[in-house]
Amino acid sequence: MTDLEVITYRPEPGEFAWTFGGAAPVRTIRTPAALSVYTEDAFGGRVRDAADLVSRLNITDVNPQTGPFYIEGAEPGDTVAVHFVSIEPARDWGASTTVPLFGALTGTHLTALLNEPLEEVMWIWQLDADKRLCRFSARMSEFTADLPMEPMHGTVGVAPANREVRSSLVPDAFGGNMDTPEMRAGTTCYLGVNVPGALLSLGDGHARQGEGETCGVAVETAMNTVLIVDLVKGHAPTPWPRLENDTHIMSAGSARPLEDAFRIAQHDMVTWVARLCGLDLLDAYQLVTQAVESPLANVCDPNYTSIAKMPKRYLRTPVFDGLHDQLRALAATL
Amino acid sequence: MTDLEVITYRPEPGEFAWTFGGAAPVRTIRTPAALSVYTEDAFGGRVRDAADLVSRLNITDVNPQTGPFYIEGAEPGDTVAVHFVSIEPARDWGASTTVPLFGALTGTHLTALLNEPLEEVMWIWQLDADKRLCRFSARMSEFTADLPMEPMHGTVGVAPANREVRSSLVPDAFGGNMDTPEMRAGTTCYLGVNVPGALLSLGDGHARQGEGETCGVAVETAMNTVLIVDLVKGHAPTPWPRLENDTHIMSAGSARPLEDAFRIAQHDMVTWVARLCGLDLLDAYQLVTQAVESPLANVCDPNYTSIAKMPKRYLRTPVFDGLHDQLRALAATL
Amino acid sequence: MTDLEVITYRPEPGEFAWTFGGAAPVRTIRTPAALSVYTEDAFGGRVRDAADLVSRLNITDVNPQTGPFYIEGAEPGDTVAVHFVSIEPARDWGASTTVPLFGALTGTHLTALLNEPLEEVMWIWQLDADKRLCRFSARMSEFTADLPMEPMHGTVGVAPANREVRSSLVPDAFGGNMDTPEMRAGTTCYLGVNVPGALLSLGDGHARQGEGETCGVAVETAMNTVLIVDLVKGHAPTPWPRLENDTHIMSAGSARPLEDAFRIAQHDMVTWVARLCGLDLLDAYQLVTQAVESPLANVCDPNYTSIAKMPKRYLRTPVFDGLHDQLRALAATL
Amino acid sequence: MTDLEVITYRPEPGEFAWTFGGAAPVRTIRTPAALSVYTEDAFGGRVRDAADLVSRLNITDVNPQTGPFYIEGAEPGDTVAVHFVSIEPARDWGASTTVPLFGALTGTHLTALLNEPLEEVMWIWQLDADKRLCRFSARMSEFTADLPMEPMHGTVGVAPANREVRSSLVPDAFGGNMDTPEMRAGTTCYLGVNVPGALLSLGDGHARQGEGETCGVAVETAMNTVLIVDLVKGHAPTPWPRLENDTHIMSAGSARPLEDAFRIAQHDMVTWVARLCGLDLLDAYQLVTQAVESPLANVCDPNYTSIAKMPKRYLRTPVFDGLHDQLRALAATL
Repeated sequence: MTDLEVITYRPEPGEFAWTFGGAAPVRTIRTPAALSVYTEDAFGGRVRDAADLVSRLNITDVNPQTGPFYIEGAEPGDTVAVHFVSIEPARDWGASTTVPLFGALTGTHLTALLNEPLEEVMWIWQLDADKRLCRFSARMSEFTADLPMEPMHGTVGVAPANREVRSSLVPDAFGGNMDTPEMRAGTTCYLGVNVPGALLSLGDGHARQGEGETCGVAVETAMNTVLIVDLVKGHAPTPWPRLENDTHIMSAGSARPLEDAFRIAQHDMVTWVARLCGLDLLDAYQLVTQAVESPLANVCDPNYTSIAKMPKRYLRTPVFDGLHDQLRALAATL
Repeated sequence: MTDLEVITYRPEPGEFAWTFGGAAPVRTIRTPAALSVYTEDAFGGRVRDAADLVSRLNITDVNPQTGPFYIEGAEPGDTVAVHFVSIEPARDWGASTTVPLFGALTGTHLTALLNEPLEEVMWIWQLDADKRLCRFSARMSEFTADLPMEPMHGTVGVAPANREVRSSLVPDAFGGNMDTPEMRAGTTCYLGVNVPGALLSLGDGHARQGEGETCGVAVETAMNTVLIVDLVKGHAPTPWPRLENDTHIMSAGSARPLEDAFRIAQHDMVTWVARLCGLDLLDAYQLVTQAVESPLANVCDPNYTSIAKMPKRYLRTPVFDGLHDQLRALAATL
Repeated sequence: MTDLEVITYRPEPGEFAWTFGGAAPVRTIRTPAALSVYTEDAFGGRVRDAADLVSRLNITDVNPQTGPFYIEGAEPGDTVAVHFVSIEPARDWGASTTVPLFGALTGTHLTALLNEPLEEVMWIWQLDADKRLCRFSARMSEFTADLPMEPMHGTVGVAPANREVRSSLVPDAFGGNMDTPEMRAGTTCYLGVNVPGALLSLGDGHARQGEGETCGVAVETAMNTVLIVDLVKGHAPTPWPRLENDTHIMSAGSARPLEDAFRIAQHDMVTWVARLCGLDLLDAYQLVTQAVESPLANVCDPNYTSIAKMPKRYLRTPVFDGLHDQLRALAATL
Repeated sequence: MTDLEVITYRPEPGEFAWTFGGAAPVRTIRTPAALSVYTEDAFGGRVRDAADLVSRLNITDVNPQTGPFYIEGAEPGDTVAVHFVSIEPARDWGASTTVPLFGALTGTHLTALLNEPLEEVMWIWQLDADKRLCRFSARMSEFTADLPMEPMHGTVGVAPANREVRSSLVPDAFGGNMDTPEMRAGTTCYLGVNVPGALLSLGDGHARQGEGETCGVAVETAMNTVLIVDLVKGHAPTPWPRLENDTHIMSAGSARPLEDAFRIAQHDMVTWVARLCGLDLLDAYQLVTQAVESPLANVCDPNYTSIAKMPKRYLRTPVFDGLHDQLRALAATL
């Protein structure tokens, strides 16, 4: 395991994918594979300062994805494990903005209202990699605040089932634009495979993000990310994205209305815990009810995403035979 | 302030309230007032062991409230501050259960489906006050798990506006059955006053609860609770319940669908932060978006409750002239 | 039956009720009772012309109800039948308006957004009782249109269950502000009784209304209404409001999100049809699926209301032993 | 116009499409084009009698589409007009069924619950083309009922925008599985073009359907359908599917929760009426509010669909220069 080669991939301008499914693979990888990749920011790198409003730039394509990677041997029913070794901002600044008809506190294309859209305003956040800080500077006054840098990927996913191709703005059972702060270095993300090769891609780096991504846009920046990809065969399928870190297992449900996203995540956690611990479904329902944390991921994308987060210490059973710990150890060798 | 008298109140069997609004006050208090009260569990104390199913006991009245307390001088537009000094289980066990047609992962009276209801099962949790643990014992297997005891009140509220009287199962702008684990010792809850005297009551003690109260019922138990009640006059009104602890301020939105509960909480936090920090609304929208935590409270009650939780360290402005710290200090003198 | 006395009741200014439950009865009636009543418009009669904006009038109380009427012998579990004999506008004009933070196509107090509210505009509709027309005149251009006069009551209900008192703006299981155009002359409305005497009231006359009451306000006007009230004892309880006219039976579900209102209405219709026709539940599910009409009532009130409407000709079984036809016949004698 | 050739197309077994977008065109057509096509039922023709449960047949592909047709000259921003000349069942029976985890009155994959799924039951409906009747026969008793035959297409759509490919089960801005009974002979459906050639397909014939398609499945049957396809260039784009018949114009909004589908449809109707009649937006909001009918289409598919239906007689302005009437006239010449 100590001589795992790191494959470096930095996409050329025309190489980004804008969908899950429907894009030709940029590389074929054999698992376990370590990848060192560059991801462009959600604006495609076109925002440079506070005057670069999304509407003025006529940005029609948002959220470019690095990939997809074709995973040798991946077949429908398998599970891809994506372990994030490191996620580091590739710039010393990030950008966030209001977007007309997008975000949780405004009318949108789906919550179609007659109110005037919100004003479009761009904020440039200064990122200090040494101090691990993101500096907010108000646009209409002198107020500033330093928030912890907590880099993450808003988007990681595989090709959808049922012949579908989805925009990279969409989170669903295939992963995609879940926008959860839990997708950080040290976390393993499990995704069910729907098509041969899985077609894994990722992007949408955030220097940090609150839970719910209320205005619709996080502190968007390009990322240099190292990840290890592995393939799990012969276990029960993974119906919705699952995450694991050193202390918790998590399920990510994506749907509208938000209570359905919550139900999916909690239902998946209840059935997962029941199987892991050999519990009756109702016993698992009771245990999860009292133990679960339920941080929101996004309440702005075409589907909303809710996380069910369960402490591993109550379960006393490893997931996928301890795969997360193995990937952790493998990451330490890179 | 050091000689604040503690008023002890333990309701007689017939003295509980089952509504917010519409119940006669049990005591009149002058603020600041320290209260030491007993609250009965949500089952009205009628569940004693795992055979005591709610349906067999023919329990029609659930969630008894201790109170209401008439607060001298409280007028519509004022804000009541409720600081929880201590919340201690009055028994060494708690109970939880599935309830037919209630809970997040089942059809209900409102999400009306043709599926058969879930089986009714009662779990008795052992509470260890010394070790601060709640022991889960599975009913259908030998599995056990010890979870931290984190006592809280599911329900605290005042009389509603617009002449309404609401069941103690309902959370809304008046507070009520919000079921947030944030309602713990050390926290101050702010509630806008709708009627003269405010008519404050509380109940629904939980030895602990996950976020979302997925099955609809927490680890329910009677509580001995000490609280300090204060009255804020002459500030801006409090439109939705707000909480404050040593590190965070919080807004609690309650509505259906769940995204509306989220919107209410986030909107209230954005407007609150804007006023506290003298920020433009859009600047506050940006800051809250990147800084907020969004733990769910309940996704099972007649309205769902979502919390917006903002670190105080970014704000650099005290709430209500530092009232929370004053109440903290006052609590230390009791 | 031919000598049914008509009780005339026109409320004095201070006699209106603003809630369901919690208001003292204005009359006690013995069923069957014929009532000739006046209902004030939803603005309390305070809007007189297009300059009378709701916000300028500082109207805090809206939707006054005529009643409540205490029905002798009505007990919880019984059903009240309200047959509308005639509903006639008491004026030759009606009013409608946009209301800031109210309506389906704007942010509201519950769908809390940062957008600016819509402009407040009042429209005065001319009513022509002879031609049965309502004339729309645009405010910002010369456009006019004549729509059929189809008078109805937005609000009819009884006191709620569980000790609650609800604002007259709320529709729920007790009836209330359902805002369905089906509540017209010739229709019988069935409401389950929750408290002794039932405490029936009605109001919110509309000269006409589209389905969904999109902007939140119909063509509001005072009404002179004749109704017959009857009491059904000894049948199965009525869990949600039901309506019957010469051709259809209907269930009215009220909840949020709107799919839950739909589910309640359809579930009630499926179980009702199953019992009426002696059908298995799944057979009734199939029949209702293919036969039902599903017009929306309101998508603007605190609960949304959806109607499930089933042709009687498929059922071949009278409801309540043919009560609707009997009330129709009785109405003809007045 | 009188010598419009009718193109007959009956797909071979392997020729059906299962998606909107992503399928190769089966024909290229030049507009105006008259098509006589066969559509298979939603079960792919594999259900033959009441014992053919969907789960036993292991049907993974549902809702086959006839097409797509590449429309010469169609470019993004244009509008395709599809006028249904006739829709006739190709068999003397149709089938409907409960499907585990699908339908409005059961837990589903998205409304994920722990309840046991509903029993799977298949109903065979007898279709009488002469009497225009569909006969329901209960499975668990002797009850029968004859409902009017009202043939329609559940699904008609074009390729989606944003590079997406969607399952034929999905309704959205591109049309698709809207499941509205309004899609009947005599109706013209307008769809905005997203990709060159538009890629029009249709299927999912229903001998009849209630509003909401409550159990998730209508009276499914194969259809022989004649339609005229035309192309509108140089008008304002069509953002959501619109329909027109001799008396009404309609907008079809598809989203979750259902109130968002309602909002989309009503918002589209308000803006459409404003432009057609030269009305201010708020004037149009008022007129639509009082005049609109709002029948539900489906409350079971991945997006729910709500129809806003506006009488043409109030508008006094033709749509697309009277295209519907022209297509009506053209249809009469076939």
